Amino acid sequence: MTYCVGLLLNEGIVLLSDTRTNAGLDNIATYRKMFQFQVPGERVITILTAGSLSVTQTTIARLREAIEDPEATGETSIMMAPTMLKVADIIGNCLSQVRADIDQKMSMAQGVSASMIVAGQRKGGDMRMFLIYPEGNYIEATEDTPFLQIGEHKYGKPILDRVVRPETSLVDAAKAVLLSMDSTLRSNLSVGMPLDLCVIKRDACKIDHTRRIEAGDKAFQSMSEAWSKALRDGFTQITI
Amino acid sequence: MTYCVGLLLNEGIVLLSDTRTNAGLDNIATYRKMFQFQVPGERVITILTAGSLSVTQTTIARLREAIEDPEATGETSIMMAPTMLKVADIIGNCLSQVRADIDQKMSMAQGVSASMIVAGQRKGGDMRMFLIYPEGNYIEATEDTPFLQIGEHKYGKPILDRVVRPETSLVDAAKAVLLSMDSTLRSNLSVGMPLDLCVIKRDACKIDHTRRIEAGDKAFQSMSEAWSKALRDGFTQITI
Repeated sequence: MTYCVGLLLNEGIVLLSDTRTNAGLDNIATYRKMFQFQVPGERVITILTAGSLSVTQTTIARLREAIEDPEATGETSIMMAPTMLKVADIIGNCLSQVRADIDQKMSMAQGVSASMIVAGQRKGGDMRMFLIYPEGNYIEATEDTPFLQIGEHKYGKPILDRVVRPETSLVDAAKAVLLSMDSTLRSNLSVGMPLDLCVIKRDACKIDHTRRIEAGDKAFQSMSEAWSKALRDGFTQITI
Repeated sequence: MTYCVGLLLNEGIVLLSDTRTNAGLDNIATYRKMFQFQVPGERVITILTAGSLSVTQTTIARLREAIEDPEATGETSIMMAPTMLKVADIIGNCLSQVRADIDQKMSMAQGVSASMIVAGQRKGGDMRMFLIYPEGNYIEATEDTPFLQIGEHKYGKPILDRVVRPETSLVDAAKAVLLSMDSTLRSNLSVGMPLDLCVIKRDACKIDHTRRIEAGDKAFQSMSEAWSKALRDGFTQITI
């Protein structure tokens, strides 16, 4: 399983992913689920992936090949696509094609699945964020719903519903996605540390910073404990 | 959809269910999902239901028929069964049979599904609580995991994970299940008010009290607002 979340805010974009993958409960491994593509100042794209590792790895590999292809065009390379919408389109088509290819090999229909969050900005364009469905179609984050989630999304949704607004600061946004992840980690063992956090500031068109949060990270642990305490204290104070 | 939750604590049992049912998004209705059977002082059983209404209603109706049957025995009537385990067994078998009957009518396998929480106590026995799966098998709440959930359970699990222990008081338990429901109501429209709350005290072998909480209930609303405020305040105070 996986949990990835992306926030599209007035000040920028904040993304968080876990790294746990498993083929059965007895075969657990760590794989990065966050992929960055950028020409600083010109274009920045971050992709978060959930679902079958064979599908997501192949999709990312093909996207990279298309970027490096000397005959790449705005129709094939996400680094040349004229708009972020076209970027989402290229990724959606690639994902859908990879799934179809693998399904054919397995001689079964719709056997493997994956979904992605794509966020970024090109110079002169708006910041945008999309959720790409396994079929290749997509939806976009808006002012009303400034966050997107893939994978095991339910445990971590209540905190986002309550605190995330377009005007949320990038610092609060990082806190919100980390607490959202914290709830998910507690309730679902198949989502696991380390975590990858990425922040992109509006109009910078480059990654502002990324951070890998390892198991046992002191800051994350103390935040997690402070949140538990806040919840328990809040619970104690409420009367019915 | 549905959300039902039951807590088995040292002091007693606390149960909560919503009442929303829907056949498609455009056909929404209110149906009670909590059913009580008791001979005060002798035996108390409460059943919470989730899943296909045709299955749950028929199951409850058959259980009632079996109780009223003049030839009822401890093998057929949940009010005569020698143990709570046998009660779970009778309900599991009945549920599984109803599903099989309906599947046959529909000429399709495993077409309709339902699950139940069964909690109660007979005089001289322990309080017990079971989750009955659609297939009729079941698991039991224990000291380590003193709560069971059916239906849309994920949104409301983090708060239970954090605050519910066997030694939790009945008042705190009611608060915990109501806050757990509050998170679910906010995140999933197919779970809806009114709510049914039921409290059974240890060794009383009767319903202590039930409460129907209607939409717009002042106490529930102010609890929900206080919880939102506590979460937001807690969020504000945490630093990363």
